[in-house]
Amino acid sequence: MEKRIFRHSVRVPYAHVDQMGFVYYANYFVYFEMARAELLREAGMPYTDMEKRGVMLPVVTANCEYKKPAHFDDLLNIETRCTAINGTRLRIEYVITRGDNVIVTGYTEHICMSSEGKVLRPVPELKKLIHGTDI
Amino acid sequence: MEKRIFRHSVRVPYAHVDQMGFVYYANYFVYFEMARAELLREAGMPYTDMEKRGVMLPVVTANCEYKKPAHFDDLLNIETRCTAINGTRLRIEYVITRGDNVIVTGYTEHICMSSEGKVLRPVPELKKLIHGTDI
Amino acid sequence: MEKRIFRHSVRVPYAHVDQMGFVYYANYFVYFEMARAELLREAGMPYTDMEKRGVMLPVVTANCEYKKPAHFDDLLNIETRCTAINGTRLRIEYVITRGDNVIVTGYTEHICMSSEGKVLRPVPELKKLIHGTDI
Amino acid sequence: MEKRIFRHSVRVPYAHVDQMGFVYYANYFVYFEMARAELLREAGMPYTDMEKRGVMLPVVTANCEYKKPAHFDDLLNIETRCTAINGTRLRIEYVITRGDNVIVTGYTEHICMSSEGKVLRPVPELKKLIHGTDI
Repeated sequence: MEKRIFRHSVRVPYAHVDQMGFVYYANYFVYFEMARAELLREAGMPYTDMEKRGVMLPVVTANCEYKKPAHFDDLLNIETRCTAINGTRLRIEYVITRGDNVIVTGYTEHICMSSEGKVLRPVPELKKLIHGTDI
Repeated sequence: MEKRIFRHSVRVPYAHVDQMGFVYYANYFVYFEMARAELLREAGMPYTDMEKRGVMLPVVTANCEYKKPAHFDDLLNIETRCTAINGTRLRIEYVITRGDNVIVTGYTEHICMSSEGKVLRPVPELKKLIHGTDI
Repeated sequence: MEKRIFRHSVRVPYAHVDQMGFVYYANYFVYFEMARAELLREAGMPYTDMEKRGVMLPVVTANCEYKKPAHFDDLLNIETRCTAINGTRLRIEYVITRGDNVIVTGYTEHICMSSEGKVLRPVPELKKLIHGTDI
Repeated sequence: MEKRIFRHSVRVPYAHVDQMGFVYYANYFVYFEMARAELLREAGMPYTDMEKRGVMLPVVTANCEYKKPAHFDDLLNIETRCTAINGTRLRIEYVITRGDNVIVTGYTEHICMSSEGKVLRPVPELKKLIHGTDI
């Protein structure tokens, strides 16, 4: 069964481009985070609300595969989908494109954690991100 | 009477250089902050200790004059000195050089604030940063 | 006569917020740059086109006054206007607001420079940014 | 046979810490890059020299596993080692520690590329990074 896909776009600022004229590799993780925030908002659970309820989503793994360079002022599209891994860990996958070109693919894995550092089961709103899948 | 001068150096990472091959203009404010942290440490008042005592130093003004570009892998020297402005506001001045060349000059102004947002008089350790000057 | 005002908005990413929960001070200069890029685009002179024509706009002065903190996920509005200073130097002013609150005000000053480092007079498209003003 | 290990350290600036009080996840990739630059320098092949010879090392894969959070002002140690994967691709591995605690582990994979975008075999200096290993 298909996972729900969320879409977000970002314009590359001059700040993010290196002297090769390419987006500096670490900045894609910032784009991942921006898209992740929109995914949570669309799921009815903005990250600010989660933090107010004492739930944090620290990253435990981050990965990016660089396919083609992106440049200053490019308008990049980010497709985001959420995949469960197990009872306490979430996996979110990203594909960044410019037109028909795939620029990078990547994923992040997160745990749900209380503000005291205790690992929690994902809140129900997060489960709704994954259609047809028990988490 | 002379102000005390503190010195710190930073190596420019690839992350900080734009497609002109120059350090991106906002990054100098990060170098200012790194030098400011060392200034506070040398004054016997690391910023982490200040925050533990409930004192924060938010920036109220920041300024930078760009004289010459800096490049990837440059070793930059930062001279920092603290100047009082009035009873609740601190001014810190920065000169960044590479060898004999001045790259940028700038300053930041800060207030001392409690974690509840109340404006405070500067802690005694900060006054010691300024030789021969009542604050 | 009124200067033309351009408007742009940015959503604050988690990446830009410090441990006080405030947007880190250097990041406002990135927002200034993003708004500046949109101003140039609306003026019919995207910065990528300028660079292709061999014209760069390095910053010679940057200034920011911090009025109120901004937070993660805030939607910030940036008003940008261009003011001539003299024949070779441009000044751009910024006001960043969240709702009715002014968060920061600031400005940047730029020279027009050829890719060989020669100072140029501003290109005609830039002059159009300033209504009723000879540059 | 043991790979050569290079060591570098970085002080965490305020700029890099998020509102959880943790180093923001993308910034570890900047630390990886800083350590990578020092590794190349110690190998007698500073990255600036490589670029002058027309050789670039764009990243094709980046990965990070987050074990424990790092905080503002922490002094982090970065151990870096280079491992060949095949004839045109390099893999560099990183371990970042604070005292006895492992903060993150990660790796990046790179290709050697000419400034025209042609994939190259690694330059001899890079091979020397790997003791007892043909590349």
